Amino acid sequence: MASRPTLASLAEQLGLSRQTVSNAINAPERVKPDTLRRVNEMIVTTGYRPNAAARQLRTRRSRNLGFRLMPTEDGINGAILDRFLHSLTENLQEHDYRVTLFAARDDAAEIRSYEELLETSDLDGFVLAGTHHGDARSDWLLARSVPFVTFGRPWNASGDDKDCAHSWVDVDGRSGTEEATNYLLGRGHRRIGFLGWPAGSGVGDDRRSGWASALAGSVAPADVDALSVGVADGTRQGAEGARHLLERGATAVVCASDSLALGASEQFRATAPGTPPAVIGFDDTPVAAALGLSSVAQPVEQAATEIVDIMRHVLDGPPDQAAPAIHRLLKPRLVLRDGGGPLASPPST
Amino acid sequence: MASRPTLASLAEQLGLSRQTVSNAINAPERVKPDTLRRVNEMIVTTGYRPNAAARQLRTRRSRNLGFRLMPTEDGINGAILDRFLHSLTENLQEHDYRVTLFAARDDAAEIRSYEELLETSDLDGFVLAGTHHGDARSDWLLARSVPFVTFGRPWNASGDDKDCAHSWVDVDGRSGTEEATNYLLGRGHRRIGFLGWPAGSGVGDDRRSGWASALAGSVAPADVDALSVGVADGTRQGAEGARHLLERGATAVVCASDSLALGASEQFRATAPGTPPAVIGFDDTPVAAALGLSSVAQPVEQAATEIVDIMRHVLDGPPDQAAPAIHRLLKPRLVLRDGGGPLASPPST
Repeated sequence: MASRPTLASLAEQLGLSRQTVSNAINAPERVKPDTLRRVNEMIVTTGYRPNAAARQLRTRRSRNLGFRLMPTEDGINGAILDRFLHSLTENLQEHDYRVTLFAARDDAAEIRSYEELLETSDLDGFVLAGTHHGDARSDWLLARSVPFVTFGRPWNASGDDKDCAHSWVDVDGRSGTEEATNYLLGRGHRRIGFLGWPAGSGVGDDRRSGWASALAGSVAPADVDALSVGVADGTRQGAEGARHLLERGATAVVCASDSLALGASEQFRATAPGTPPAVIGFDDTPVAAALGLSSVAQPVEQAATEIVDIMRHVLDGPPDQAAPAIHRLLKPRLVLRDGGGPLASPPST
Repeated sequence: MASRPTLASLAEQLGLSRQTVSNAINAPERVKPDTLRRVNEMIVTTGYRPNAAARQLRTRRSRNLGFRLMPTEDGINGAILDRFLHSLTENLQEHDYRVTLFAARDDAAEIRSYEELLETSDLDGFVLAGTHHGDARSDWLLARSVPFVTFGRPWNASGDDKDCAHSWVDVDGRSGTEEATNYLLGRGHRRIGFLGWPAGSGVGDDRRSGWASALAGSVAPADVDALSVGVADGTRQGAEGARHLLERGATAVVCASDSLALGASEQFRATAPGTPPAVIGFDDTPVAAALGLSSVAQPVEQAATEIVDIMRHVLDGPPDQAAPAIHRLLKPRLVLRDGGGPLASPPST
């Protein structure tokens, strides 16, 4: 296996036909997800380069990076990615780079867009957001040696994101919810709930773990479990989740998003009028600021700056020097506001 | 003057050197703004095409439209342009077009970006937002026959935006504030203030005119003047402006933005606790929804769809058929919420 990997050697190693491997590379939508994953893993393992020759011929730089614009959800949490996009565009502009935006229904459609954009627009690389467990997008780009940086960790099954072969910049959500929980503990709260999303999302589980770790010293393990609720993101769902937490005796709540926090604070107000709700949100959106709600702020401007630095290092650096992957975990910041009420002590019973 | 206009004939008609005219076309930053405007006007009048030959040689389409991303201000009002960008990107994606984003400090920098992007990225055209009196950007693009559509009227000095040589789609802000004011009149309010921006902005003056027109039948002309305040956009400024209006006896306020409305409703609550503030904002942002504030909603998704339709008509239509400019003024919608208080009648005196 010392010789350079080819389509044929790949097919042989995988026990697949050459046509299937070719499809996995050139028409991934025709291949079963399992097969596609196996082929992509083998491409990474062997260092196979499907079109290295074609790429070496290309001398013209577009100075343009692709970015998928995620759909607007309720307009609250999406604001964080819009802020990131503003900062990314402004940072890139300073170095004479632009952003090519595209929309995609899902990851498979995003990959089809990569393919098309690399072909037709000569993009220099991509910036990815919304990384998740088993992200097929990063595998696809790695397999083709397309430069990219993710805003978000890969959430590897191994748990060690520093092993990751591509560069990423992310915000340490765990430390944010830990700080928020410690703050509420310091105000005398003990039964502090966590209002997050259903288990299984890298970001959501990470934010939950910070709360659980801070609470572990003050509350029995069974209570920690009882004080965690996972719901779909949204204001209505946040109110519903907070109702459950209040029934279980929670006096304060740390939330995985400002949408959830908005719903939770409305529920707290309705259930206990006159007691300021001790609710802390996540993302420090304009809505949190307008409502006087405390929230964990992500340094998205710094994230954009770091991503641009890494990209420039790769794209503007010496061409033959393979740049090692860079990983940066940024600290969030707890923004305290008195309108929401986390400054309050728990109601005396 | 029946012969085809040339650089030389342009220079002669304008009494300028050929070098100056050439600079105005190829290096506008070297030319005085006044001279640039004169040259651009003459280019439009005579139908001179600086590089028609070069453009006809170009066969490759990038299927990419340029859009300048405006800076994030307070995160409240900017949300409307972010929503527009999402909708624009999604609409374009359906027709296999993408968006190239760039940042620019001002209109002159935006024009330099046009120039560079047309040169290096072969963009097919542009979508412009934030149109204003004497907008140099549209003149520049018209003079070069670059396809573009503006989200926003040209705000011509003549006052007749339908005369405009380029296509635009806009929202009828005047009818939005008129409806909001009529609604408050129907609730029994008479001294309804207008909280907007300093006079001189097309958008702001238009929104003020709807309020003034609705109020004219109910209030003496001198009172109409007294009940209008212009401040810079922002929550703090909104609170300050509302304080002036309250001093002048206003019982309700129609605002040019949700940032202003947020500040106004805080001021109303502080001045008259217990009386729900009769405040109506503009743009129906997530902040207005979260606070239960009534607001005038712009149909930005419809605006994006119409802009994409016009662009496709120009770009995908028969090449030799000059498409006439299209102008669409869309109706906004008053979104009423009970949390803010415009449903309330004025305090009895």
